[in-house]
Amino acid sequence: MTRHYNFCAGPAALPAAVLERARDEMLDYQGRGLSVMEMSHRSPEYVAIAERAEADLRELLAIPENYRVLFTQGGASLQFSAVPYNLLGQGGRPNFLHTGIWGKKAIAEARHLVGDVHIAASSEGNGHSAVPRQEEIVLSDDAAYLHYTANETIGGLEFDYIPEARRPDGTEVPLVCDMSSSILSGPLDVSRFGVIYAGAQKNIGPAGLVVVIVRDDLLDRARPDMPSLLGYRALAEAGSMVNTPATYSWYLAGLVFDWLKNDIGGLAAMDALNARKAAKLYAAIDESALFANPITLGNRSRMNVPFVLADASLDAAFLAEAEAAGLLNLKGHRSVGGMRASLYNAVPEAAVDALIAFMADFEKRRG
Amino acid sequence: MTRHYNFCAGPAALPAAVLERARDEMLDYQGRGLSVMEMSHRSPEYVAIAERAEADLRELLAIPENYRVLFTQGGASLQFSAVPYNLLGQGGRPNFLHTGIWGKKAIAEARHLVGDVHIAASSEGNGHSAVPRQEEIVLSDDAAYLHYTANETIGGLEFDYIPEARRPDGTEVPLVCDMSSSILSGPLDVSRFGVIYAGAQKNIGPAGLVVVIVRDDLLDRARPDMPSLLGYRALAEAGSMVNTPATYSWYLAGLVFDWLKNDIGGLAAMDALNARKAAKLYAAIDESALFANPITLGNRSRMNVPFVLADASLDAAFLAEAEAAGLLNLKGHRSVGGMRASLYNAVPEAAVDALIAFMADFEKRRG
Repeated sequence: MTRHYNFCAGPAALPAAVLERARDEMLDYQGRGLSVMEMSHRSPEYVAIAERAEADLRELLAIPENYRVLFTQGGASLQFSAVPYNLLGQGGRPNFLHTGIWGKKAIAEARHLVGDVHIAASSEGNGHSAVPRQEEIVLSDDAAYLHYTANETIGGLEFDYIPEARRPDGTEVPLVCDMSSSILSGPLDVSRFGVIYAGAQKNIGPAGLVVVIVRDDLLDRARPDMPSLLGYRALAEAGSMVNTPATYSWYLAGLVFDWLKNDIGGLAAMDALNARKAAKLYAAIDESALFANPITLGNRSRMNVPFVLADASLDAAFLAEAEAAGLLNLKGHRSVGGMRASLYNAVPEAAVDALIAFMADFEKRRG
Repeated sequence: MTRHYNFCAGPAALPAAVLERARDEMLDYQGRGLSVMEMSHRSPEYVAIAERAEADLRELLAIPENYRVLFTQGGASLQFSAVPYNLLGQGGRPNFLHTGIWGKKAIAEARHLVGDVHIAASSEGNGHSAVPRQEEIVLSDDAAYLHYTANETIGGLEFDYIPEARRPDGTEVPLVCDMSSSILSGPLDVSRFGVIYAGAQKNIGPAGLVVVIVRDDLLDRARPDMPSLLGYRALAEAGSMVNTPATYSWYLAGLVFDWLKNDIGGLAAMDALNARKAAKLYAAIDESALFANPITLGNRSRMNVPFVLADASLDAAFLAEAEAAGLLNLKGHRSVGGMRASLYNAVPEAAVDALIAFMADFEKRRG
């Protein structure tokens, strides 16, 4: 068995320790005589797994008691629909910060369902190379909430602050964040948010699961025409078991939370490690004559590092040689081209070191 | 490692051969250096896995070319919403056969989204102990489609025929079937259906995945207010990759399809095995003085066998002793009580034999 270094943007690398445990428990979970996959979601064994996962996530993120944690399905993209359904029952318009492709998709779906939305600020003017500063954000008078994408996975643009969400008259509205590609990369002040959601396939677990963290007072603002399964209130009351949840993915998420707590030592330690990994790779890019990253310094994503080669005709050779060297999935998103190295939690520092060494060698030989 | 016999109604038993293969490939899929869970859904390796799964499912069910196969998320319950959204864009009313708890849930969600539905036939009058016969089914003049539940997992009631779906004027409407708990239990004439959907967690794979089989001409009947991710047209055009699909669950479904084809020998063989398993258990129940099943003979589910003890005060002892004997998850659904043995494809005949022997012994000692 060989494990290569995997820089995929998602579904992303998982900790080897997590996969080993899943492998060892695959046919017989702790002597129960069956796989976690084969357990009733209502069985005491499974409920213990599910509750443990939630408790560990709460501990890691220090989630306040007035927030509910939901483990649901459909990926972050289904939340593009779920958020407007859940939050617009009392009227008002969704407000958005537009900082890249994922934000744009969230905006498009809200427009589709609601008709009119307000763009409170956009980084389109700078080619999504810097996030809007707080003073550039202007909500509409009728803002129902402000939605933003904390980290744009494709563009490699990350907010370096949590925006304030206030209407022009100063009243605060809920801040909603798609945190798919940066959740759990470091400590977080959850109390600043109304709703946080995150597709699992980056820092949480396998694709298909989505985690929603929602403040209690937002559970009863749903539009009456909402598909029932999208409702936060119902999910919260049923412990995310309105219907059969994605039980195995939830279990794997629990293993990842356990790894973060006990192998890594919590999110402060994870934060330091992620800072070091990203700093190294950006330094190597900046010092090179062949590689470049266009993002403003303070807004560079720690999780997704896109870069281009000065000579794009070398792209194919770079990717082929990288793969041959056991450095997988460095191709940029098909919508933007170039390269992208995703440095999620499960990507070890040794992988970054190996990538940097490979890049230096490639530049020497081909640059 | 011990593997017990697992009669869970879902998430249900999976073939040991499938779990063994998943275990062996967990950290390194066929020498690629990563887990299937860690693969980009757009990578050639993963696309090959996904396409192979679809091809095997098509072969097993002999799905005609004018049907699309979708691998999506949210369970069958999200299809309770998706079906009306996808099929009511041209007006008309949903028609339903009501044969139990799952049918009732589908009806409730259609009512919630649409307002008015028509019940074309119901088995409420006989306590859901026999399915409506064809001549009892009366569609509304404005029927847009007829929805039914092929096998009621909780009640243990299964259709012994495929209903015809015609309005009073003789025009045919699409037949829509929730086949979650009976799909792949035997051969099927897919051409009789407009839409078939099935939550994976019974005969397909792990919970979270749902398979939809939809006839081409039904892809363009969607209501404009449909949440985009529920749209069959978009899913079909994107090869079910509108957003990141539940990649690992899809892979596991593929392993199950492979097992059905190559280990079992296809659906005719599976059908014969399922018929034998169910016949044995029902015979044991019918011959006993302690155990009873209330369903009309021809409509007894082959997948879910509910039964009660003549003396309900023995229920707890029955369950405890069964579990101690390695016979797991025999408790009936919390809404109906009693016992239930689910005999899905992955439950081996030896499990049924062991259950029958245990029941006979229990009756001798306690009956």
